[in-house]
Amino acid sequence: MSGWLVVAGLGPGNEALVTPEVTTALAQATDIVGYIPYVARVAPRDGLTLHPTDNRVEGERAAHALEMAAAGRRVVVVSSGDPGVFAMAAAVFEALEAGPDTWRDIDIRVLPGITAMLAASARVGAPLGHDFCAINLSDNLKPWELIERRLRLAVEADFAIALYNPRSKARPEGFARTLGLLREACDDDRPILFARAVSTPEEVLTIVPLSQAKPEMADMRTMIIIGSSQTRVITRAGAPILYTPRSVI
Amino acid sequence: MSGWLVVAGLGPGNEALVTPEVTTALAQATDIVGYIPYVARVAPRDGLTLHPTDNRVEGERAAHALEMAAAGRRVVVVSSGDPGVFAMAAAVFEALEAGPDTWRDIDIRVLPGITAMLAASARVGAPLGHDFCAINLSDNLKPWELIERRLRLAVEADFAIALYNPRSKARPEGFARTLGLLREACDDDRPILFARAVSTPEEVLTIVPLSQAKPEMADMRTMIIIGSSQTRVITRAGAPILYTPRSVI
Repeated sequence: MSGWLVVAGLGPGNEALVTPEVTTALAQATDIVGYIPYVARVAPRDGLTLHPTDNRVEGERAAHALEMAAAGRRVVVVSSGDPGVFAMAAAVFEALEAGPDTWRDIDIRVLPGITAMLAASARVGAPLGHDFCAINLSDNLKPWELIERRLRLAVEADFAIALYNPRSKARPEGFARTLGLLREACDDDRPILFARAVSTPEEVLTIVPLSQAKPEMADMRTMIIIGSSQTRVITRAGAPILYTPRSVI
Repeated sequence: MSGWLVVAGLGPGNEALVTPEVTTALAQATDIVGYIPYVARVAPRDGLTLHPTDNRVEGERAAHALEMAAAGRRVVVVSSGDPGVFAMAAAVFEALEAGPDTWRDIDIRVLPGITAMLAASARVGAPLGHDFCAINLSDNLKPWELIERRLRLAVEADFAIALYNPRSKARPEGFARTLGLLREACDDDRPILFARAVSTPEEVLTIVPLSQAKPEMADMRTMIIIGSSQTRVITRAGAPILYTPRSVI
């Protein structure tokens, strides 16, 4: 069996953020599997079959990729950002674990990518320069109560907090609740970054104090970073810098 | 003033994980600043001055880089991994904020890289596939009591936990204490990943249940990932797979 399966991270959107390791895997592939806009980032060529699929079919998509690899194809499952952060890698391993034993012999590799929170952080400074956490705000796959509990504990631990998928289609009020919870626990001037479409031509970066943050500032393409109590804003003629010092004072 | 300052992430060690954006910046630089082993990763060439410095001089190194950029040089400060995660970006902004007002006019950019936890995660599967946190276990810049408090809250939140710098030179017993704390709060079979020198020829990946984890399994080149209560190990003829499912059961 000469097939293999690679789960590759394409980074946040800018092609200059795709690692050479991923570029090489894409060049060797016979099949590309993934969500439509991510597959669209791979140039068509002879001998390459593109398999774009809709969102919310991660399980079927993963099983299809495993089937093709088991049949000898060289398959790349593409994710935005890093495939291991709220993306396709976990879905592939769920399918592998639930599937036939022979799938465990597949040559399978995960290739990391620049995940959205690190791209967003870099664009404004270094808000994740001290201890931090990453929470998926979508309640498609976990109860909202657990999300809220994690948010409260993350604030208590004084982590900077990166929020992925802040506007769940299933429960759009989740981020409004998050802001309410933060207002109970944090000072009014706690800085919040809204980073939309990071690294693309549509990029918009907005830093506001908690008191001015509004639910409608986030959409499905927005990454949010909530500063810790130590996070600082440096004002200057150019865009402000947001960063968290290394030391705790 | 035509100088600029870039803070660039070189990734965990493998050159195939360096982004094209970083490669371009290195090619345009007149000066490379950083810790000795990271500067050694940049090939010498005419017109390029290398400024390798010892560890624990981050503040002076950052100020030197800012001075040179203000004087018109094209300076790249190199970090391992991602410069915004327990690396040089925060040190540069600390120096900038404390320095002369004119430094605020410097053209300064942070270029993200593949941070160690994402490289380690990818090498074994997807242990960070659900909510997670990253904690620097070094107590050089924060009190140990705060680290311990964060660890307890992170376990209570049921995050997967990535530990950077697990063996502080100043307090080598920190990781032993961490294991003691985890044993009080977690089941014996909680999986722990020790990922040493990830992506390099010296890479060693070890997955053990908490009951078998020992302090001496970590050194300064080791990244540790502690699974959440949901993290699973898939056994097979090849290396085991460690991953955290997307759904909470």
